[in-house]
Amino acid sequence: MYSQEIESLLKSKKIKIGDKISVINGKIQYAGILMPRIGLGDPSSLTIKLPNGYNIGVKYDKDVKIKLLERGKPIKFKPSTITVRKDPSKPTISILGAGGTIASRVEYKTGAVFPAFSPADLLLSFPELKDVANIKSRKLFDLLSEDMTPEHWKIIAKEVVKEIESGSKGVVIMHGTDTMHFTAAALSFMLRDLSVPVVLVGAQRSSDRGSSDNLVNLVCGATVAAESDIAEVVVVMHGNTTDDFCYVHHGTKVRKLHTSRRDAFRSINVRPLAKITYPDKKIEYMRTDYKKREDKKKVKLDDQMNSNVTLVYIYPGIKPEFINSLSSFDGVVLAVTGIGNVPANPTGDKFAQSIIPNIKNLIDSGIPVVIAPQTIHGRLDLNIYEAGRMLNATGVIGNYADWTPETALVKLMWVLGHTKDMNKIKEMMTTSYAGEISERTSVG
Amino acid sequence: MYSQEIESLLKSKKIKIGDKISVINGKIQYAGILMPRIGLGDPSSLTIKLPNGYNIGVKYDKDVKIKLLERGKPIKFKPSTITVRKDPSKPTISILGAGGTIASRVEYKTGAVFPAFSPADLLLSFPELKDVANIKSRKLFDLLSEDMTPEHWKIIAKEVVKEIESGSKGVVIMHGTDTMHFTAAALSFMLRDLSVPVVLVGAQRSSDRGSSDNLVNLVCGATVAAESDIAEVVVVMHGNTTDDFCYVHHGTKVRKLHTSRRDAFRSINVRPLAKITYPDKKIEYMRTDYKKREDKKKVKLDDQMNSNVTLVYIYPGIKPEFINSLSSFDGVVLAVTGIGNVPANPTGDKFAQSIIPNIKNLIDSGIPVVIAPQTIHGRLDLNIYEAGRMLNATGVIGNYADWTPETALVKLMWVLGHTKDMNKIKEMMTTSYAGEISERTSVG
Repeated sequence: MYSQEIESLLKSKKIKIGDKISVINGKIQYAGILMPRIGLGDPSSLTIKLPNGYNIGVKYDKDVKIKLLERGKPIKFKPSTITVRKDPSKPTISILGAGGTIASRVEYKTGAVFPAFSPADLLLSFPELKDVANIKSRKLFDLLSEDMTPEHWKIIAKEVVKEIESGSKGVVIMHGTDTMHFTAAALSFMLRDLSVPVVLVGAQRSSDRGSSDNLVNLVCGATVAAESDIAEVVVVMHGNTTDDFCYVHHGTKVRKLHTSRRDAFRSINVRPLAKITYPDKKIEYMRTDYKKREDKKKVKLDDQMNSNVTLVYIYPGIKPEFINSLSSFDGVVLAVTGIGNVPANPTGDKFAQSIIPNIKNLIDSGIPVVIAPQTIHGRLDLNIYEAGRMLNATGVIGNYADWTPETALVKLMWVLGHTKDMNKIKEMMTTSYAGEISERTSVG
Repeated sequence: MYSQEIESLLKSKKIKIGDKISVINGKIQYAGILMPRIGLGDPSSLTIKLPNGYNIGVKYDKDVKIKLLERGKPIKFKPSTITVRKDPSKPTISILGAGGTIASRVEYKTGAVFPAFSPADLLLSFPELKDVANIKSRKLFDLLSEDMTPEHWKIIAKEVVKEIESGSKGVVIMHGTDTMHFTAAALSFMLRDLSVPVVLVGAQRSSDRGSSDNLVNLVCGATVAAESDIAEVVVVMHGNTTDDFCYVHHGTKVRKLHTSRRDAFRSINVRPLAKITYPDKKIEYMRTDYKKREDKKKVKLDDQMNSNVTLVYIYPGIKPEFINSLSSFDGVVLAVTGIGNVPANPTGDKFAQSIIPNIKNLIDSGIPVVIAPQTIHGRLDLNIYEAGRMLNATGVIGNYADWTPETALVKLMWVLGHTKDMNKIKEMMTTSYAGEISERTSVG
């Protein structure tokens, strides 16, 4: 769909996708076939296929004039009709579409990008998949990952369980990258007693760009789902900026650390679980401390969440009243400075303000306050500095944790879905359910 | 000072530091000399020097009994009395103490750690400094960096200007590490037309630990101040986990990225300006695009700040009301997801909630909303995805910026200290005053 403005203009002029039109912008005039909006392309730019075969985008504004030149054939997305034969020597895996830029198919005839989710469509776009596994696939929803909510995490978790129960030897979820690490953490907590790999894959560059990483990430992800013995929720993404290999990141220990690089996802405070080389698709394990495939295990869905939780990064000059204003939440994660500090003003400096009493008030009123390092990397230790000890005395949860602020947030939502009792909350938060608190920092 | 509880107990028993006391905790009894609290040690633990010369810490609680055994000689910190002779062949630099764990001197006789700020004290603790420069030094305040506020940034800036005006060829600021990158950004904006290097140094490990990094960081920092031609605000800290070299990071492009590692500070989206090898103190320049020393330039103090600004990291399920609740601030920085997204719900999903109208409301009411990447690394581009375009249309400031959320926060405080006019705010925010927006990402 184009923007509402363009769609109503087209409607008023009875212009349909596929018609030959002219677009006049001042002295510049184009004539060509009106194409559908390309994938996640600009909704306020008209895409025109010129007679030379190239598509161009023309930014629409009030000065742009559009005229119907010739009625054309409607352009429609036709699901592929190739027959996919099952290879009995290969395992069957499920691929679920949850949105993002990874799952799209370019129609080379028209240049349009369509979501592609049937097994036949996926194999047409990514023929290598058939060397990896037999594919079952379907779309759950088509959402940009910044719109993903805890409700969507629950839907994904439920559908993953269905796929596993139907016999799939692994599940791949195609997902937008912005919040993929939050979803990975959520699934890690919700899917108890996992028996097979659950793999999140995404693309940092869309499929209409030459540098797209979607093929390599999807094929490597499918390989992990089909062949690896890692019965954990993992993220499989580019390991560097070329197409040589992907890393398998543990779902609770991964964070997006670059806006655009293909190797934006990094393991935090641990080594990746494995490396998949491409194109030979060899799995090189880098750790042994993960849960292994077990055919007898039966996955349990434990998806109760309380999403009324917030995440606040501490900064210099943060006001005590800002902490007070968080009292409408059922839980608060504070991304504290350094090894575990907040403004505490033990020396009674005249400009500094302590937020210790305000944190204590939240906790005393029954709101758990969980801490995580805003440095992203490293482990908290509240026993080194005075501010840390003062913070610890308030009853915050998370001393010695090496989780990311994002994983701490998701875990607190999940824990608060199970109990409102502060002791039980503390007990659950400090228990490592899915590797979110490492025994020790293996990568310093 | 010990905790208030211990101090009043000591007062009531007329026990002074230096007295011989007995400490009884159940069946365990120690007798020894009561020492001053060690540096940033636990204020609720008594430090006792045993007859064998070792210091032990005894955690104080209600069950611990204390008795005066023998009146002792008071233990006092004696400033060093060595005479420091000026070396006319060397430049003079200023070292200012702003707190943190870096600036402390261990009295080996007593084991106590005292702040050491006179030139003689500094040279006693760090004799190598005399090979680098003549030292002027004084203490501004002694603050843990998590207690630092915009008011302290102003004090530091003012005192740096005084030192430069008095003829110092460079200024070193000893500072706690937790918020050192915020202070570095603030000084970068406040000190206009810098003529000499202004160097922040800190220590990740305190001076009573064998692995302390304070010596190497201070000596390398002093070398940059005395010898380099970099007339910028920089952070000089360990470049790796050994003591081989330090990096010189640009003040607006650096962030603490580990809770405890000595190489926690990393340049973001740029290469470090230089590398200083240790112990040979050679400066290897890594870039040329910095402002150079200029004797004729006269530094200008431009320290107007409005600290009523907040920083919020976006997370899945963030509530529109949370954005509304920020209306009491004069400016808001949003650390957005990925390349520049927030929940926008262009597809009308039933669970997703858009915060676009709420952001627009803030801006329409005169509150500037500045965006920065929560991935830390990389550059924003709001023209790639629909949510980004919707966000851009609200009037947020920061499209194409590659600043960190922390630098964006400090800059917005500084800009709001100068104007309340939205157009002027936009103009100033998008002008790179201190390298905070790089021309292009030189390290991808």
